[in-house]
Amino acid sequence: MNSFTKFADAFQRRTPELPSDTPQTATVIDGRAIAEEITSGITSEVRRMKNSTGNVPGLALIMVGQGRDSQTYVRKKLGACEEAGIQSKISTLPENCTEDQVLNALSCFHEDPSIHGILVQLPLPQHLDEGKILNSVHLEKDVDGFHPINMGNLAMWGREPLFLPCTPKGCIELLIRSGVEISGKKAVVIGRSNIVGLPMSLLLQRHHAIVSVVHAFTRNPEQITREADIVVAAAGVPNLVRGSWLKPGAVVLDVGTNPVKDPSCEYGHRLIGDVCYEEASRVASAITPVPGGVGPVTVAMLLLNTLESAKRAYNFT
Amino acid sequence: MNSFTKFADAFQRRTPELPSDTPQTATVIDGRAIAEEITSGITSEVRRMKNSTGNVPGLALIMVGQGRDSQTYVRKKLGACEEAGIQSKISTLPENCTEDQVLNALSCFHEDPSIHGILVQLPLPQHLDEGKILNSVHLEKDVDGFHPINMGNLAMWGREPLFLPCTPKGCIELLIRSGVEISGKKAVVIGRSNIVGLPMSLLLQRHHAIVSVVHAFTRNPEQITREADIVVAAAGVPNLVRGSWLKPGAVVLDVGTNPVKDPSCEYGHRLIGDVCYEEASRVASAITPVPGGVGPVTVAMLLLNTLESAKRAYNFT
Repeated sequence: MNSFTKFADAFQRRTPELPSDTPQTATVIDGRAIAEEITSGITSEVRRMKNSTGNVPGLALIMVGQGRDSQTYVRKKLGACEEAGIQSKISTLPENCTEDQVLNALSCFHEDPSIHGILVQLPLPQHLDEGKILNSVHLEKDVDGFHPINMGNLAMWGREPLFLPCTPKGCIELLIRSGVEISGKKAVVIGRSNIVGLPMSLLLQRHHAIVSVVHAFTRNPEQITREADIVVAAAGVPNLVRGSWLKPGAVVLDVGTNPVKDPSCEYGHRLIGDVCYEEASRVASAITPVPGGVGPVTVAMLLLNTLESAKRAYNFT
Repeated sequence: MNSFTKFADAFQRRTPELPSDTPQTATVIDGRAIAEEITSGITSEVRRMKNSTGNVPGLALIMVGQGRDSQTYVRKKLGACEEAGIQSKISTLPENCTEDQVLNALSCFHEDPSIHGILVQLPLPQHLDEGKILNSVHLEKDVDGFHPINMGNLAMWGREPLFLPCTPKGCIELLIRSGVEISGKKAVVIGRSNIVGLPMSLLLQRHHAIVSVVHAFTRNPEQITREADIVVAAAGVPNLVRGSWLKPGAVVLDVGTNPVKDPSCEYGHRLIGDVCYEEASRVASAITPVPGGVGPVTVAMLLLNTLESAKRAYNFT
């Protein structure tokens, strides 16, 4: 897939802008507030579980290498676990580790009864077979939901995946909590990664949306996106989705977190989304900001999946 | 899913017809001829395998009950096996059999080294857990490709399913052999069954089409379908897709095989598709007839999957 180049091309075409005095119409979907509400509920449940069974949920992370983004995400996940009272363990492996080392780390966590969820932080270095490693995560601890059998059960009618992938699950949560009807609506997912675009499109279909996936081979992404009531942008291209790509009143979820240089920020860069927020917020009826939109809810969903897994393990309801 | 009722509703709205003197413009895609060509290639390969290894591919069918449709399909599959030199075995179980009896029949075929593909004829009687039974088919013999892990691998980028489900695989074959470009084209799949609609939409996406799935919750199926360059109708509703549902020049694959009463026919009924052929053939650029379109190619794909499985088993290339 060479989606980046193609999307970037589309971006370069620079579709016409709205007059700059058009007021912002969109409700800002406050992902942080929603995530806090969810996490607060999880915290209570964890406490209840501890009081009743003596156990708490446990999440294990496997991180290979020292990628700055990965470190940031892992730190956020560990912090969220701590906040909710979920035990966490981390196995950090060097960038040049072997596949066997990763599989061994997985095995340890598989055998550890205090661990109910295992997460392999992506992306992995090129020399490791990501597919093989993700396929090795035991289904009952696959809180990321990236195992193909889980994805197949997500796709198929009448089947229930053990876990819903966290970002798509979080996006649905944002829509529902914002009072957005999904059933019967036209949705466009921009990007088709295995970890966001694909499960997002499958989950929207499960909620009875009519879904189109826009990708590198889509000749007129603007036109197709403009038909959507719900737009989920997950292409990884900064500011790809312009105001002119949106139908007035559309609901926009921006999954993109693209670092752009900004010397005024702590680490010399700041994060921007796949959606040109300034323009989109003058066309959409509701929109998630970046940061503070989809990201925090994704982390909350990881905690929720871990809690659900622990409940299953301890037969606690 | 209550797709039937909703689709039937849409049908009842009776969209305006074309003037009856509009000439037929569509090329008829001759599924029988294409299937014969494919089967002839398979027959040669089976012969080559026999000469080289002494073995032929083997397909096992499990049929529960005596449904007339199932009997017809099974007969066609057995006949096609015989024509191609593929060995076939069939296990017929009574309508009121237990789940264990079906699972036992599966086990026998799993252990039988002369069997390379196992097919459970659907639909199964209501009292049997279809999901559990299909999940029990060993991946390396799942020539129908209905196991969720196979479906997950079909959905995910960078993964390869062991088998492509026969009807979608056949539809792609029909498009390719008819010179229809798929990449970048808008496709609409009508219906979202696990055995046709779902894998069809995933396979079209793998071929880089922009796919929308139209289903019971789609408020304006006509309008969405009218945008498509490629339409695959698999709703199981006779004559659902009218001429007015189609963009002029669209390519139409009709997966429907709906029996309608006709005393002049041998069994008192004849088969019609999901597409109103008379109207559609005056709007489309190419169309499959029913019968003689998708059906024969689906059977050819079953033979092909069985051959591929046997090649893997005997490490024969």
